[in-house]
Amino acid sequence: MCSLSTKSSLNVAIPEDMSFLTQDEATKIDVELFDEYGFTIDQLMELAGLAVATAIAKAYPPNAVQGGSGNVDKSSPSAPKVLICAGPGNNGGDGLVAARHLKWFGYDPCIFYPKQPAKPLFAALRRQCEEMEISFMSFLPDATLVDQNFALVVDALFGFGFRPPVRPEFVEVLQKLCKFKTPIVSVDVPSGWDVEMGPHADSIKPAMVVSLTAPKKCVQNYKGKHFLGGRFIPNSLAAKYKLRLPTYVGTELVIRLQ
Amino acid sequence: MCSLSTKSSLNVAIPEDMSFLTQDEATKIDVELFDEYGFTIDQLMELAGLAVATAIAKAYPPNAVQGGSGNVDKSSPSAPKVLICAGPGNNGGDGLVAARHLKWFGYDPCIFYPKQPAKPLFAALRRQCEEMEISFMSFLPDATLVDQNFALVVDALFGFGFRPPVRPEFVEVLQKLCKFKTPIVSVDVPSGWDVEMGPHADSIKPAMVVSLTAPKKCVQNYKGKHFLGGRFIPNSLAAKYKLRLPTYVGTELVIRLQ
Repeated sequence: MCSLSTKSSLNVAIPEDMSFLTQDEATKIDVELFDEYGFTIDQLMELAGLAVATAIAKAYPPNAVQGGSGNVDKSSPSAPKVLICAGPGNNGGDGLVAARHLKWFGYDPCIFYPKQPAKPLFAALRRQCEEMEISFMSFLPDATLVDQNFALVVDALFGFGFRPPVRPEFVEVLQKLCKFKTPIVSVDVPSGWDVEMGPHADSIKPAMVVSLTAPKKCVQNYKGKHFLGGRFIPNSLAAKYKLRLPTYVGTELVIRLQ
Repeated sequence: MCSLSTKSSLNVAIPEDMSFLTQDEATKIDVELFDEYGFTIDQLMELAGLAVATAIAKAYPPNAVQGGSGNVDKSSPSAPKVLICAGPGNNGGDGLVAARHLKWFGYDPCIFYPKQPAKPLFAALRRQCEEMEISFMSFLPDATLVDQNFALVVDALFGFGFRPPVRPEFVEVLQKLCKFKTPIVSVDVPSGWDVEMGPHADSIKPAMVVSLTAPKKCVQNYKGKHFLGGRFIPNSLAAKYKLRLPTYVGTELVIRLQ
């Protein structure tokens, strides 16, 4: 019944018929968390961003990665540079929160945030990063520069609400991301992928995905590193949507799915 | 230079001259986090409550405690009952958040919240608990009933802003807590203790304290289980206040101090 061994607290029994959400289901669950369960977006975004940073630190520990193209140099004490690409919606907000926790976890994050919403929460998230001396970049460097300078890229551009086509101002961003050799970690949904159908021929190919709440249908055949985070679904909500998910162990905020 | 071994990721090197904050320092750091660093109270309360629940799950794992007076019965699958006593301020808010995470971690929390502020955040925190089927008790049971029915008590009545004397409506609550045999876990500051001078003769004697941000002077001679949580201090703020604290390991949200 299980596709993984239980050798660590992150590798738990995965149900063979694990749930992969449709876009509609993901949206409904999100709405219920706010409208029915009374959660604030600040709270759930904080937990989501923390889960993303935690998964990254488990998969790419800061003392095991350094510099560009995933060079491994355990002797180097310098904090690995992580480029966070944040989009205009909640997925981008998760990325800003993740940046902050990555800094606390020993990374050197740097943010590309080309389209910033006016809402106070997003302004506050940006300010928190700036006050923590996390730099914002005014342009997205080309692949050569990224590969030379960054150990990881976090794709927090679009989430489960994405509907094609990609807005014109992000087409070039995604084209650039496709050329990076630096491993890309996608938050919840790899940007540009159809949320249910998955990638197109010219889509980004993330080395890792951190699904939040539950994986979406687009990652059903995904073969890279895959974590689940977002330990904030009440039992009654999981039951209502008949969610079949692995069980978090102890106080872990993430589960390694593959 | 270190008072603890490093046998687990929770037991880290503790500086011999570790900082213990005065009430004034704790207040100033709190104000700076909001006013200078732009954090929202929802965010930091979520992280504080999560740290408290995490420390409890490390010290009293849900599969190792059951029922009253800390009975250990590993064969029982029932979730241990935890009584959370929440006060009217932010310390109480930390307790409500901790209750929610304790539920996700496999406990059966139950809340005594006699004086509830009208602010929307506190109403939302209460609603989140209620919607997650966490009960609110209209009275605080006597010691016999608590010891028979609860594995743990969380004291989230007063925090670092407390100044004596205890308000009249909480005198009886603290007197009852003094009679519990069930282990008490105090959030940040054991309620009723002078924040700098520590306990009086008739103070509660918690079995465990979870200090947040940095320990306060009142716990300088405390001999019980002691955890540090609140991994949200920017380096620049720690430097400004010359905080000497142990370093969190990996993605851990808490450090075991003793």
